This record gives sequence, C-alpha cells and structure tokens, in this order.
Amino acid sequence: MGFHDKLSDAWASSDSMLCVGLDPDPTRMPPAMAADPEGVLEFCIGIVDATAHAACAFKPQIAYFAALGAEDQLERLCAHVRDRHPRTVLILDAKRGDIGPTAERYAEEAFERYGADAVTVNPYLGTDSLEPFLARTGKGVIVLCRTSNPGSGDLQSLLIDGEPLYERVARTARDRWSRLGEVALVVGATYPNELSRVRAIVGDMPLLVPGIGAQGGDVRATVEAGRDSRGYGMMINSSRAILYPSTGADWAAAAREAAEATRDQIRAIA
Amino acid sequence: MGFHDKLSDAWASSDSMLCVGLDPDPTRMPPAMAADPEGVLEFCIGIVDATAHAACAFKPQIAYFAALGAEDQLERLCAHVRDRHPRTVLILDAKRGDIGPTAERYAEEAFERYGADAVTVNPYLGTDSLEPFLARTGKGVIVLCRTSNPGSGDLQSLLIDGEPLYERVARTARDRWSRLGEVALVVGATYPNELSRVRAIVGDMPLLVPGIGAQGGDVRATVEAGRDSRGYGMMINSSRAILYPSTGADWAAAAREAAEATRDQIRAIA
Repeated sequence: MGFHDKLSDAWASSDSMLCVGLDPDPTRMPPAMAADPEGVLEFCIGIVDATAHAACAFKPQIAYFAALGAEDQLERLCAHVRDRHPRTVLILDAKRGDIGPTAERYAEEAFERYGADAVTVNPYLGTDSLEPFLARTGKGVIVLCRTSNPGSGDLQSLLIDGEPLYERVARTARDRWSRLGEVALVVGATYPNELSRVRAIVGDMPLLVPGIGAQGGDVRATVEAGRDSRGYGMMINSSRAILYPSTGADWAAAAREAAEATRDQIRAIA
Repeated sequence: MGFHDKLSDAWASSDSMLCVGLDPDPTRMPPAMAADPEGVLEFCIGIVDATAHAACAFKPQIAYFAALGAEDQLERLCAHVRDRHPRTVLILDAKRGDIGPTAERYAEEAFERYGADAVTVNPYLGTDSLEPFLARTGKGVIVLCRTSNPGSGDLQSLLIDGEPLYERVARTARDRWSRLGEVALVVGATYPNELSRVRAIVGDMPLLVPGIGAQGGDVRATVEAGRDSRGYGMMINSSRAILYPSTGADWAAAAREAAEATRDQIRAIA
C-alpha cells in the first residue's frame, strides 16, 4: 500500500486529521524522565501510545534527535510506530534538499534507516533534487510550499509574473512532481488564505499543515480553507500543545486529552 | 577568531582555495577498507591527513554519514580535523532549513555536536529561519544561492521584477543577513555567468563553489568569475575527484596528488 492509500486508510480508520508532531525537548519533558536520549525515547513512546487512536500521522522532527545525538533512539521510535501502530502514517520531518547523488543518501536515511512512509523536502534545488525521493515506489514526498513561520513570505511570496513563488511550487507539484511519485505539500495553518489558494490549485492532493496550537493557527479557518472534496485532505500538525500540557504524573493522560480535544475540534468543522 | 577571519587565514596559510568534500561512498572506497562506519572514518581521516596542506577547507556531507548511521564517526572525524588541522576551515554540509525553534536545534547539531566552523543552509523559509544560525557568534552561515545541479534553475532562475531569485538571495544576503552574522553563499561552478553576477552583487563575501571535478565545472571559468578583489574569496569544492582517483594501495597518495593538482590549477589562474 502506497503513501496516499495508507493516508486515506489512516483518515478513515482514525476519523482524524490530527498529526502529532514529535519534537522532544528534554527541558520540557516530565521531570521524572531522564533528560537524555533514552528519556526522550521513553517520553516519545509514551506520547505515541497515548495519542495513536486520535491521530492519522506521527511526525518526528529529526532536528530534536540530531541535536542530542539520539539517532539510535529515533530508529527505535520509528520501529515502535511501525510495529504497534501500523495504520498510522509515519512522516520523517527532515526538510532535506540536495543535489541528486546526495539526495539519494537522504532518501536512504528516511526510507530505509528510519522506515518512514513519507519525508518532508525543500524544493529550492529544483526537480532533479526531488527525483531520488519521488522515485521510491509507495513513499510520500512532502514538499515545502508555504511554511508556517513569520518570515515564510520573504522568498515564498515573491511574485513571478504576478504569481507568488509558493503557488508556482504548488502548480509544479501538481503538473510535474505528482507524475513522478506520491506528492503532498506543506502549507502553514498560520496562512489560511494561502492554504485556500493552494487547495484550489492542487485538487485533492494531501497537505501537511503545521501551525495550529503553539504557533497560533486557527483550527476553524484551517479546516475550512484546507479540506479536500471528501472532507479530509490534511495532516494538521500539533506538536508542543500535545506534548507538554502537563509535566506531572498525568503527562500521558494530558497528552491523550489534548490530542482527542484537537481531533474533535477538527472533526466538528470538517 | 570568527569564520571570516579563520577562512582568510586558511587561504593565506595554505595558499589554496580548494575545499575537499568528504562524501564517503563505501562502494567506491579502497577494498582494503571495511564498508561500514568505521571503514568510512578510517578512509576520511586518511583523505584529510593526505590533503590538508593543499586545502583551505574540509566539507563533510552529512547525508553520506546519516545514510549509514555513522553520526558517531562523523563526530570523531570533525574532532580530528579540529585537533590536527586547526587552521583548516570545517564546513558541515547539511543544507538545513526549518522554522526558528527547530533551526535552533540544527544550529546545536552543527556547531556544538560537530564543532563546525560553518554550516550550509537553505533560504526557502526566510530570514527568521536563518537567525538561529546567524546568531552564533563567530560561526559561518553558508546560504544556498545558485546550486550546481542541472535543475537548479527551476526555482532559482525564476524572475522577480526582472531579477532571478538567486540574485535576490544574494542581495538579501548582502543587505540583511550579513548584518546578523558571518555569511557566505553557495554558487555552483557549473554556472560561471551566474557566479560572476553573484560576485558583482556581494563584493568580497566568501563563496562556496561546488561543481568542479566530477560535476564538470571549468576551473578557469570558475576562478575568473568568482575571485574577490584580493584574488581569493572562494572555497572551490571537489569531492569525488579527490576521494576516488585510485582504490589501490596508493589511494592516499593519489588523493594527495589530485588535491595538489587541483590547488595548483586554481592557483595558476587566481
């Protein structure tokens, strides 16, 4: 089963568009947990098991593991998700982008080493830099389009013949990259107007939508702007709001409640 | 001593603009070497010690280590460069780019974990995504501008009010990012006209120039287009042509000869 089919199955089986972002910060984890790579793994597995029923996807952010030298723990976390929650999509958030032979190594990292269903990539280097990812049968390639950060417009909103760069990326994804593989796009919840524009361009292509929760994106505006013709179409990511609602003994239960509440909030609108 | 001063010192002490790219491929290493992470470390240390006198910089490409699960070996390789060749600039080629809190983790990875002098970054997410790197006093931030791959023009050559995107990146680097930290730009040797345009925009800002050697960039055209007002100004990268001229018992000597020949070829023009 390829990425798009697995994602459709995950939306249906979980009835959720929530993606739980795994950005483990040892300084914000429950104090009962060791502030080291093994503590990070224990925390993330606890979060995964507490929230899987309410999520269509998990998205570990590799930077949080790389800063700690916790690649081994990330491998074990990914294996845990695949083994215990096989219907939940596993996205490696790595935002890779490099020339062909090097991109091939990053594809090995994402798909063989970590066994991800999909990886986030940066389009700045052009089509040939995406091809090693797109060529992996059944794997998902989630291309940055309009990101959720305040400065995302610095390049992404520059106008090319009257069309912002992020819309050009969306059109290229629709017309070119989607013929080469299984494509999705990153569009921030912090920009609902742009999300709506991208949805109009790409039809039912899946969108990974960060920016609700701690980043302030509005859930109603996001769902209304980004849902597809079937009422799904998005992996709406929340990281910090799910991971850190409590650092007490109830941390896992608090994460479960936060995930269920976000899922319900999305579901009520979709 | 900050990145720019260390680089100027490296140009002067080595009288070389060669940057040796460390892209270790176990299938191309000498057969006497184990095709595993420890073999990769042994090979890279051999290359480093054979070529340091002829190079201003070493540039390990993290993808080649990440695909093998060889982060520990990359740490030890970086420590070796810092300890044994302290006047040679150490660039982590990672092409990172993410929103602020995540970019901060990537900065930790590059500058604390690996102890690099500089890291390559992708500008697609805008200024705030670069700030965590730029804020590191004395560290270098090498921003992708016009990359060496065949498809680099797909986005980078799009015209904004008549100006290609890569030139906009160069101007922004000059006018904005260079006020926030120590900046350099990546411009491919495969595009000497564009290299010349970028040099005209950025004055004496250092350029990391991949694309000679296996990628086919012409050394004479590169040096003539890219040198700065002092006759230096570039880290001209060669990876495969230095790493793999021989897989026999003479592999280290062959790498030394390839590095010296490339250095001399550059020096004769500069």
